[in-house]
Amino acid sequence: MTQLQFSDVQQAAARIAGVAHRTPVLTSRTADSIARAQLFFKCENFQRAGAFKFRGAYNALSRFSDEQRRAGVLTYSSGNHAQAIALSASLLGMAAAIIMPHDAPALKVAATKGYGAEVIVYDRYKENREEIGRRLAQERGMTLIPPYDHPDVICGQGTAAMELIEDAGQLDILLVCLGGGGLLAGSALAASALSPGCRIIGVEPEAGNDGQQSLRSGAVVHIAVPDTIADGAMVTHLGVHNFDVIRRTVDDIVTVSDAQLVDTMKFFAERMKIMVEPTGCLGAAAALHGVLPVEGKRVGILVSGGNVDLARFAKLVA
Amino acid sequence: MTQLQFSDVQQAAARIAGVAHRTPVLTSRTADSIARAQLFFKCENFQRAGAFKFRGAYNALSRFSDEQRRAGVLTYSSGNHAQAIALSASLLGMAAAIIMPHDAPALKVAATKGYGAEVIVYDRYKENREEIGRRLAQERGMTLIPPYDHPDVICGQGTAAMELIEDAGQLDILLVCLGGGGLLAGSALAASALSPGCRIIGVEPEAGNDGQQSLRSGAVVHIAVPDTIADGAMVTHLGVHNFDVIRRTVDDIVTVSDAQLVDTMKFFAERMKIMVEPTGCLGAAAALHGVLPVEGKRVGILVSGGNVDLARFAKLVA
Repeated sequence: MTQLQFSDVQQAAARIAGVAHRTPVLTSRTADSIARAQLFFKCENFQRAGAFKFRGAYNALSRFSDEQRRAGVLTYSSGNHAQAIALSASLLGMAAAIIMPHDAPALKVAATKGYGAEVIVYDRYKENREEIGRRLAQERGMTLIPPYDHPDVICGQGTAAMELIEDAGQLDILLVCLGGGGLLAGSALAASALSPGCRIIGVEPEAGNDGQQSLRSGAVVHIAVPDTIADGAMVTHLGVHNFDVIRRTVDDIVTVSDAQLVDTMKFFAERMKIMVEPTGCLGAAAALHGVLPVEGKRVGILVSGGNVDLARFAKLVA
Repeated sequence: MTQLQFSDVQQAAARIAGVAHRTPVLTSRTADSIARAQLFFKCENFQRAGAFKFRGAYNALSRFSDEQRRAGVLTYSSGNHAQAIALSASLLGMAAAIIMPHDAPALKVAATKGYGAEVIVYDRYKENREEIGRRLAQERGMTLIPPYDHPDVICGQGTAAMELIEDAGQLDILLVCLGGGGLLAGSALAASALSPGCRIIGVEPEAGNDGQQSLRSGAVVHIAVPDTIADGAMVTHLGVHNFDVIRRTVDDIVTVSDAQLVDTMKFFAERMKIMVEPTGCLGAAAALHGVLPVEGKRVGILVSGGNVDLARFAKLVA
C-alpha cells in the first residue's frame, strides 16, 4: 500500500478543476455567537449531485484506461457515492452499475437512475455488498470503485478541505463528518500540509463510534450497522486506505447524538437558509453543541451534502 | 415628488457597503434545463435578517439626521421589513418601535424583539396601522419608515439587482417578486441603467394582481387583501413612489399560482439546497413554469427572502 501524500490531493484537484464546483464557504454571525468561535462552513451540499462524493468519484473515473472506460464502473453505496459515480460516468461517457440497499432514501435512488445508471438492490441486513460487488465486477469486467476505501476516492475528497483552507485561511480546528473515512482521510492530507498545527477532528454518530474505537485502539474496529439518522455514516468499519491516513494525521474522533443532528439541521435551514442532510450536520453539530472546546478558535467545518427527501426532512424537523 | 434615478441606487450602495451582505448569485444546471435558459439567482435569502429588506431599511436609517437618530424610527410590518428596521436601528444605535398585528407569528415577533425593538401590538381587524403610526410618530417624534413607499427604501432595494448584473453580466430578462413594489422599482432603476434592453418583469401572486392591473391601466389599482401563501405580497396596492418608477421602467407584470410557488419552493430545497420563503419563489416560478417565454435567454431572478418557519415549510411541501 502506497502512503498517500498531499501531492496526490493536488493532482486530484487538477483533474476535477472546471468539472466539480468550487463550493462556497459560508459564515454566520449567529453560529459564531453560539460557538463563541469563528466558523467556516465549506458547503458541499452545493456540490454537483449534492455532496462532496462527486470529487472522489470523478477523480477516480478520470484515471480509467480506455479499456476500463469501455467496460464501465461498478459500485455499492447507500446514496451520495452512487449519484456521484452515476453522474461522473455519464459525463465521461461510460456505463455505471450501482448496488444500493433496499432502504436507501428514495430521492437518492431516483437521482442515481436519473443520471442513467443501472441500480441493483440488495438487503443491507442480510447480504454483503462487497461480495455482490466482487462477483458482478468479475462477471461484467467492470471496475469497482468503492465509496471510500480507495486512494483516488480519498484524494478527490481531500480537495474540499484544500479549497476551504485556500478560501478561509489558516485554521485552528477542522471538523469533518466521518462515515467510512474518505472525506476525513482526504481532508487530513490537505489540512496537515496547508494548515500545519490545525487539529483535525472526525465527527461520527454516537450510535456508530467505530472510528473513535479504531483510532484509540490503533486497529480498524468492526461494529454492527449503526442505528442513526445520519444515513451516510451507517458504515460498519473504516476503510484500510482511510485508516492508514487517519491514524497518522487525525488528532481525535468525537461523536454527536441524532438529536444534536436534528437541531443542527434546523439551525442550517432556519438561520442559514441551507438544506443539509443529517450526515452533513455532523461537524457543525460538534461545534454548536460544545462537544469539544472551540472557543476563540478559527474552525473549518465540512458540510458534506444536502440530499434529504423533503418528506423525511419535514418529519425530522417537526 | 423627485424622479428617482440610478445614481440614487449607487449612493445607497455606498451607504450599505460592508454592512449588508453581498449575497451570492447561484446557478443550477437542472433549472437551466427546465427553463431552457440561463438563470442567475440572486439569493437575498442569505441577506442579513433573511431578506432583501435590510438593504432599504439600512439605507433609509443611515440618512437620518442626529435629531432623527435621537428620537428613533417607527414602522408597521408583520414581516421582513420589521426585522430589517429592528436590526438596522440596533446597528445604528437608535430606538425602534414596530407596530405589529396581534396575530403576527410568535417567531416573527420574537425575532423583532431579539434585535432590541419595541413591539406595539394592534388589532388588525379593529384598528388602522397607518393611523397608529401617524399618532405615535407625532407623540414620540419618531420618523416613520414605511415598508415600501419611500424613496430611500426603493433605492436601497435596487442595490440587489445592481450586484446581480455586476456579477452575472448583461441580462435579457429580469424577474422580480412584486408586493408593494420596493424591490421591483429599485431593481428597475438599476437594470435599466446597467443592462439596457433588459426586459424588466414583475411577478405577483395571481390572487393579488393589483400591480398588473395598475401597470395596464396607468394608475394605482386598490384590491382587497389577497389570499395567497406569498405573505410578503399580501398588499392591497402599489406605493406611490414605487408606481412612479414602475410605470416608466417596467415592461410587464405577470402572475403565478400558489401551487407554482410550492413547486418552486420544493425545487429550491431539493435541487438547489436553499430555503426560500413563498414570496421569494415568485420570480423563479415564472421562469420554471413557462409563465413567460425565456428560452435561450439570460435571465436574472431576484430571490427575495428565506424567512419561513419550519413547521409552515413542512406543511407546505408535504
